[in-house]
Amino acid sequence: MEIYLDNSATTRAFPEVAEKVAKVMTEDYGNPSSMHMKGVDAEKYIKEAKSIFAGILKVNEKEIFFTSGGTESDNLAIIGSAFANQRAGKHIITSKIEHPAVLESMKYLESQGFEVTYLGTNNEGVVEPEELKKALRDDTILVSIMHTNNEIGSLQKISDIGVIIKEHNKNTLFHVDAVQGFGKAKILPKKMNIDMLSISSHKIHGPKGVGVLYIAEKTKIHNISFGGGQQGNMRSGTENVPGIAGMALAAKMIYAKLDEECEKLYSLKVRFIEEATKIPDVTVNGPKGKEGAPHIVSLSFAGVRAEVLLHALEDKGIYVSSGSACATNHPEISKTLRAIDLDKSLWDSTIRFSFSVFTTEEEIDETVKALNDIIPTLRKYARR
Amino acid sequence: MEIYLDNSATTRAFPEVAEKVAKVMTEDYGNPSSMHMKGVDAEKYIKEAKSIFAGILKVNEKEIFFTSGGTESDNLAIIGSAFANQRAGKHIITSKIEHPAVLESMKYLESQGFEVTYLGTNNEGVVEPEELKKALRDDTILVSIMHTNNEIGSLQKISDIGVIIKEHNKNTLFHVDAVQGFGKAKILPKKMNIDMLSISSHKIHGPKGVGVLYIAEKTKIHNISFGGGQQGNMRSGTENVPGIAGMALAAKMIYAKLDEECEKLYSLKVRFIEEATKIPDVTVNGPKGKEGAPHIVSLSFAGVRAEVLLHALEDKGIYVSSGSACATNHPEISKTLRAIDLDKSLWDSTIRFSFSVFTTEEEIDETVKALNDIIPTLRKYARR
Repeated sequence: MEIYLDNSATTRAFPEVAEKVAKVMTEDYGNPSSMHMKGVDAEKYIKEAKSIFAGILKVNEKEIFFTSGGTESDNLAIIGSAFANQRAGKHIITSKIEHPAVLESMKYLESQGFEVTYLGTNNEGVVEPEELKKALRDDTILVSIMHTNNEIGSLQKISDIGVIIKEHNKNTLFHVDAVQGFGKAKILPKKMNIDMLSISSHKIHGPKGVGVLYIAEKTKIHNISFGGGQQGNMRSGTENVPGIAGMALAAKMIYAKLDEECEKLYSLKVRFIEEATKIPDVTVNGPKGKEGAPHIVSLSFAGVRAEVLLHALEDKGIYVSSGSACATNHPEISKTLRAIDLDKSLWDSTIRFSFSVFTTEEEIDETVKALNDIIPTLRKYARR
Repeated sequence: MEIYLDNSATTRAFPEVAEKVAKVMTEDYGNPSSMHMKGVDAEKYIKEAKSIFAGILKVNEKEIFFTSGGTESDNLAIIGSAFANQRAGKHIITSKIEHPAVLESMKYLESQGFEVTYLGTNNEGVVEPEELKKALRDDTILVSIMHTNNEIGSLQKISDIGVIIKEHNKNTLFHVDAVQGFGKAKILPKKMNIDMLSISSHKIHGPKGVGVLYIAEKTKIHNISFGGGQQGNMRSGTENVPGIAGMALAAKMIYAKLDEECEKLYSLKVRFIEEATKIPDVTVNGPKGKEGAPHIVSLSFAGVRAEVLLHALEDKGIYVSSGSACATNHPEISKTLRAIDLDKSLWDSTIRFSFSVFTTEEEIDETVKALNDIIPTLRKYARR
C-alpha cells in the first residue's frame, strides 16, 4: 500500500499527461523556431497551451509566458520587474511566509540596493491587508504576496490586497506566487489587480521542469535570460514543447472539474482534521475549513519529533512532509511556523499532509489509523 | 515521406527516452528534496544521471549540474562566473560565431561594465588560437569558445585554446558551449582545460527543457537563480527528474556507439557534399571532411533564396534550416556567414542540412534528387 500525502511537494503526473509528453517528444518534436512544418506543428502546441491558460485565467494569450518552473517564474517576475522599475523607486513589500523562490529573490535584490519590507501574519498565517496598507510607500514599486501558503495552507486576501495596492499607486506592481493555489482555486488576475502570476506544472499533475508566468500586458519587466529571443525575448531558450503541452493538458483536466474536486478535497480535509485531532495533543496549524486551502493540513504532534514520525509513517507506506519540502532536504526552521507564533516546542513536531485529486477517503482513514498506532508509541519512547 | 534534416535545431527523442520520461512522471514522481522514499527514489535518478555524464566526460559527479537547457547553461556559466570573478578583472574573450545564448550573455555583461573581445575566424569558421593568444590580457577572467559551430559545423581548436589560456593565467576560466558538439565528439574537460561545459538534451534525442552544465570543482561561480537551494544552491528549483533521467539515457545511448555513429554521419556528409556540389554553383561553407562536425552541412545555392528553397524542399517532405534556427523565426543575417567572409550575395542563399543517428543514405539520396529537381527551376524563375 502506498498513500502519497505530499502533493504540495510534487504530484504524480496524470497518465494522459505522460502519454501526451511522450507523443510530442517522438512525433511532433520540431523546434518552434524552425520555419518548416515541423516547427509550425510544434508552435501549435505552444499556442494551444497559451489559449488554455489564457482561458483559465481569463487573460490574453500574449500575456502567458512559459518558464522552467515556479522558481524561474518567481525569479523573473520579481527580479525582472524590480530592475525594470527601479527609477520609480527601490522599495518592495513581501511577506515572511513566502516560498524561498520569492524570499531568496528578495535577498538578492537587497544585495543590489533594493529595500524590502517583510510583513508578518496573524496566527492563521494570513497577512493583514491593513498591515500592507501601512507598509506602502511612494517608492514602493512591487508587492509580492503568495496565493496559498505551502506549509499550512493559509489563503491570502489577494483581492483586498490588489485593491489596496492599486488605490495607493496604480503603477505599483502586484506579483502573486500561485504555485500552491493554481489548480485549487479560481484565480483571475484582471479582476484581482494581479500584474504577474507564477504557476508550476508539477504541482498540478503536469510534468516537472515547466511553469507559467502571467505578465499583464503593460507591465515593465526585463528578461533575466539571454539568448535566441524566444517568447518575445522575455524567455530565451528552445521552448519545452512536450512539457508545455503536458502542463496545459493537466491544467485543462484540473479546471474542467475544479469545484467538484475542491469540494472533495475539503471534505477529506475536514474528515482528516476531525479524526486526527481526536488523538491527544494534536493541534492544527492554519485555517481548518474553507478559509484555508483544500489540500493542505499542517498538524503539530506534541512530544513527537517530526522526522521520526515521518519515517514511522513511511514504514506504513504513507508519505508526508516535515515543514516545507520545497527546499533542500536539510530544512531550516520554518519561517511560516514562526510567523504564526506556534509554540517553539512544536516547531520540530509539525507534519504537513497534502492531498490531490488522487487522494481517497480510504487513504485518509488509513492515515488516521496509522497515526493512532504510531503517536502513543513514539510518545512513550520520547518520555523515557 | 518525411526527411528531417534539421537536427541541429532539435532532434526526435529516442522512443526509449520518451518511455523513460513517461515512466518517471507517473511512477517515480517524488520530489528529490522530500525526505521519504519517494524523494529518495527520485534522487536516485539524479544520481544515476550525474554518474552517466561524469562517466562520459571523465569528471567528478559533483561537477555535474542540471539546468533547463543550453541557454540556461550558457547564461549561468558566463554571467555566474563573470560576476564571481570580477575582482580579478572585467575582460572577457569570445568569438563572433557563438550561439545567441553566449553572445546575448556577453551583451548583458557589457551593459554591466564588462569589456568583451569578439574574435573573428578564418574562412572555414575556425578561431585561430594565435588570435586568442594576442587577445588575452592580465584582466581576462573568462574565455568562451564553442565546440562546434551550429551553422556550418566548424570545430574549434578547443585543446589548443585551453593550453594557451592556462599558460597565460591558470585562473582565467574557459567555458565551452558544446550544445552542438556533445554527442558527436569525445569531449574531456579535464584533459582540455575546460572549466565549464554546456550541454543541451534536445540536440541528442533527449527531452526538451533540460541541459547540463559541467563546472570544474574549484571554479568560482555565482548562482543566477534564487530559491530552495537545490543542487548545492547552484541551481534552485525542483529538479526535472523525468527530463534529467531521459537526457541521461539519451547520452548513454549516443555514447555507447559514438565512433560507429560518427563514421556513419561522416560518410553521409561526404556522400551528400559530393552529390550536391555536382549541381552548378553550389558551394560548401565550412570544413568539408573530418576537420568539421559530422552532422552539419551548410550549402550556398547561388541565385536561390534560402526561404524559397526551404519551402520547396518542405513540399517534398524534407525539413532543413536557413541560417540558424536556434533563434527566433525571424533570423538576422548570420554572424557566422559574415565571419567566414562568404560572398554577400550568398548570405540569403544558404541552407543548413543537419543529420542525426536516424538519418539514412536513402534520405540523403532523396534530398540530392530533390535539390536536382528544385534548384534549376528556382533559378529559372529567379532569372525572370
